[in-house]
Amino acid sequence: MVQYSSLAEAGLQIMAGSLYVVSTPIGNLDDITVRAVNTLKSVGLVAAEDTRRTDHLLKHFGIATPTTSLHEHNESQKLPQLLRKLAEGTDIALVSDAGTPLVADPGQRLVARAAAEGIRVVPIPGPSAVLAALAVSGYPADEFVFAGFAPSKSNDRKRWLAALAREERTVVFFETPHRINKTLADIAELLGERQITVARELTKVHEQVARCAASSASELSMPARGEFTIVLGPILQPSQVLQPIDDQDLAAYFYQLTDLSRSPRRAAAETAAKFGLSTNDVYARLARLKATTPP
Amino acid sequence: MVQYSSLAEAGLQIMAGSLYVVSTPIGNLDDITVRAVNTLKSVGLVAAEDTRRTDHLLKHFGIATPTTSLHEHNESQKLPQLLRKLAEGTDIALVSDAGTPLVADPGQRLVARAAAEGIRVVPIPGPSAVLAALAVSGYPADEFVFAGFAPSKSNDRKRWLAALAREERTVVFFETPHRINKTLADIAELLGERQITVARELTKVHEQVARCAASSASELSMPARGEFTIVLGPILQPSQVLQPIDDQDLAAYFYQLTDLSRSPRRAAAETAAKFGLSTNDVYARLARLKATTPP
Repeated sequence: MVQYSSLAEAGLQIMAGSLYVVSTPIGNLDDITVRAVNTLKSVGLVAAEDTRRTDHLLKHFGIATPTTSLHEHNESQKLPQLLRKLAEGTDIALVSDAGTPLVADPGQRLVARAAAEGIRVVPIPGPSAVLAALAVSGYPADEFVFAGFAPSKSNDRKRWLAALAREERTVVFFETPHRINKTLADIAELLGERQITVARELTKVHEQVARCAASSASELSMPARGEFTIVLGPILQPSQVLQPIDDQDLAAYFYQLTDLSRSPRRAAAETAAKFGLSTNDVYARLARLKATTPP
Repeated sequence: MVQYSSLAEAGLQIMAGSLYVVSTPIGNLDDITVRAVNTLKSVGLVAAEDTRRTDHLLKHFGIATPTTSLHEHNESQKLPQLLRKLAEGTDIALVSDAGTPLVADPGQRLVARAAAEGIRVVPIPGPSAVLAALAVSGYPADEFVFAGFAPSKSNDRKRWLAALAREERTVVFFETPHRINKTLADIAELLGERQITVARELTKVHEQVARCAASSASELSMPARGEFTIVLGPILQPSQVLQPIDDQDLAAYFYQLTDLSRSPRRAAAETAAKFGLSTNDVYARLARLKATTPP
């Protein structure tokens, strides 16, 4: 019941090559894995979204493997050639411009067709802007939705964001630099008190991660340069909300402990544990409170 | 409006350390990135889900950085200590047992708290079982849903799968080895004609990727060992469905071309392009048809 093609039925897959789906860096070239380099070196051909970008990557790592372009405009011509090469025994690596191929990238039909033909498809995992942004957001990611690129037309985008507002899970999506500030304004209008993390130029020199309530998103005014990955926090149940810490409560707790003859050091440590803070931060909050409270 | 903590307000973040969220291999140790190795080497402390597993990883790469455990059972004690170290200037790397931290892993509260305290949080992207499985599935991933771990109780799981059946996008989820075959039986019952890809032990020696219609999922009978990542294909609109190729249609197209005095070679190439196949596969299908057609 596992799908095999006629080639596989004919026993020809014994000599067939493998299709490696290779993740590449999203900005910082040191985000390459050892296996990605070895795979790109050992295959017979690299099918790339943009051969100039991929040639640059290969050159950086001293890899001489030939590249061929595969994108949505030449896919129907290129697919039969690539499938024939695989069937004839050539190993091929599929890469996109950046990150893990197939996530909002072309190449999906090559993988689908190769799998249907009984070709072995092997993942070479590595960077992805989706997961990098999710990891630094700090939002729960037991479950999440990747929503692709925000629609380009203003009305479509507003409708799309309004639909996302009903999604309770953490949501990740991409936006282009020339629309980012319009989209942040739409988010402020449509997504209320949800939390938002905006990641720009992830892993690059000018990496920037900004966080705020969605209602303030229009004030972020990001530079309209680089790639943007936006993460919307989940809609939390009231019990899950991280309550802001009231310094009065914190001080009351601390002085209650010192009244119970705990040393200030011990009381600060216990207060820190209670409020999920560092002891340094407990001291800083106590000092701030003292400074603003009339004697 | 970007959130700064009291520490940041006090200007103390100048001396603060950074929190690196570091992706590690999901099986094959060569799936480590150059930057992950360098970061794990350079930080003062590694906060790990399971220090034994992480110590093994660090030892493999000759890294002597001390580790400390951070998991759901010691999180409330450990958070204040780690936040204090960050505030005092220690760089910390957060890792999970495998893959990208936070995706169904502990550690999320450390990132959330550190970000709220104005600590710089830096992603070191790398492998993830979610994206590796998605990449080899060949299903459209312009959008997708990660649904976490399938529920452990049979009735909960059936309700959960029934809800997933209404999700039109590609869905990825995790299952444990001791429940995989029960879950595949439930999928066969509840998810009808959707396509399914089951990935086992991704990137390891016994990596296995099986694909079939969801209705046949119970016949896959996977070995109850290793980690499983399941990908459900999207619910396709009729126009998007990859129609199975009818060999009679293919042959008719081919002979029409030869009747128009194309050479067999040329006709095979054009037929291949038309049907999205390799020319070899066109010849194989023509040969098979000839063999089964009475003269």
